[in-house]
Amino acid sequence: MTQKPLSVLSQAVSGRVIVELRAGREFRGVLDGFDVHMNLVLKDATEIIDGETIRRSETTIVRGDNVIYISP
Amino acid sequence: MTQKPLSVLSQAVSGRVIVELRAGREFRGVLDGFDVHMNLVLKDATEIIDGETIRRSETTIVRGDNVIYISP
Amino acid sequence: MTQKPLSVLSQAVSGRVIVELRAGREFRGVLDGFDVHMNLVLKDATEIIDGETIRRSETTIVRGDNVIYISP
Amino acid sequence: MTQKPLSVLSQAVSGRVIVELRAGREFRGVLDGFDVHMNLVLKDATEIIDGETIRRSETTIVRGDNVIYISP
Amino acid sequence: MTQKPLSVLSQAVSGRVIVELRAGREFRGVLDGFDVHMNLVLKDATEIIDGETIRRSETTIVRGDNVIYISP
Amino acid sequence: MTQKPLSVLSQAVSGRVIVELRAGREFRGVLDGFDVHMNLVLKDATEIIDGETIRRSETTIVRGDNVIYISP
Amino acid sequence: MTQKPLSVLSQAVSGRVIVELRAGREFRGVLDGFDVHMNLVLKDATEIIDGETIRRSETTIVRGDNVIYISP
Repeated sequence: MTQKPLSVLSQAVSGRVIVELRAGREFRGVLDGFDVHMNLVLKDATEIIDGETIRRSETTIVRGDNVIYISP
Repeated sequence: MTQKPLSVLSQAVSGRVIVELRAGREFRGVLDGFDVHMNLVLKDATEIIDGETIRRSETTIVRGDNVIYISP
Repeated sequence: MTQKPLSVLSQAVSGRVIVELRAGREFRGVLDGFDVHMNLVLKDATEIIDGETIRRSETTIVRGDNVIYISP
Repeated sequence: MTQKPLSVLSQAVSGRVIVELRAGREFRGVLDGFDVHMNLVLKDATEIIDGETIRRSETTIVRGDNVIYISP
Repeated sequence: MTQKPLSVLSQAVSGRVIVELRAGREFRGVLDGFDVHMNLVLKDATEIIDGETIRRSETTIVRGDNVIYISP
Repeated sequence: MTQKPLSVLSQAVSGRVIVELRAGREFRGVLDGFDVHMNLVLKDATEIIDGETIRRSETTIVRGDNVIYISP
Repeated sequence: MTQKPLSVLSQAVSGRVIVELRAGREFRGVLDGFDVHMNLVLKDATEIIDGETIRRSETTIVRGDNVIYISP
């Protein structure tokens, strides 16, 4: 049975995810929500650029058009 | 319960936010409003490029398609 | 109370604004009008690229998708 | 009174305009028409790249999404 | 009287055109058709990159979002 | 008989695919699902950048606008 | 009589095509299908980057927004 990307994303809510963004930026944190544009809400996320930790934030709202992939 | 990105953004209004834009630009200020495109209104915001403070403005209207993430 | 970006832009009409565009281009002039795409009409605007004044024009119509931010 | 960008563009028809495009390209000519995407028709336009005149054409149809600004 | 870009393009069908694309690519050939996205059909077109002739094709279908300008 | 791209993609579900993304990124894994934007769900996928294996993930949700091609 | 780009593409199905993509990538193969976004299905296609053959695949689904031109 084929799985829809947004259904799989829905199952990932409340769990830890890796979010790869354009320009070498990555977030690792808990997926707290999303919408159809793949805008994301992340909790307790660490921001990593080119492998280096930059910042840790309680809440991060990521604009979907920067996302390359999300890995639960 | 899953959180919608724009609802979380709504809860951030009147509080301080970090807004990361493309090309190494960042704003730090008070979120005064937004719309569905993630166009933002910032109050008393400091503009930082590659870590260096560039400008401080009473009001800044940011076009949403430059936004990478917003952190309340 | 939350402020919509286009309402704030509306209040800025007839006043001086800084318009930051992509690729290091900036306009400083009087905001004479705009539409929902953030296409702008500027009056008596100075164009500045990488900090250097390039041109001064009575009327300038800026296409909205180049805009990073507008500061009244 | 606020001016809509496309109305101002409409008033510029039949007059000379400077059209600044992305990637350092500029046209100078007579605006012969346009549509809502800011696709443009230019008459007797000179194409200039990085300050150097490249070509002169009787008619040029510019695709709007390359436009940064138009100055009548 | 103002001219619509797609009307001017319509008048150019069956005649020779220069089509300038992004990234220094140019086609010279006969315009055989187009649609509202400025997707183009070219006949007997020569492809030129950075001033050098690359290829000559009987039929070429150009995707419109690569177009900078078309000159009949 | 002509084949629709999304029909061909549908037939590829449950089989191994190569997914080429922009900026030299490639995934090799099992296609578990997709939607009309070519957002993809991959299972047991290996991520390869410029020919080098970076990461292996049980589940990966790829945002469609990064896709160049998919090869079943 | 003017030819619509998608009609010309339709006539090219089952024949060999050259597909030029952004970033110096080219496919040569048999066009097996397409849709209105210019998403393509190619059969027995060779992938060429900067003139060098990279890969040969039985089936390739190309996402349309990477296409510069298609030449039957």
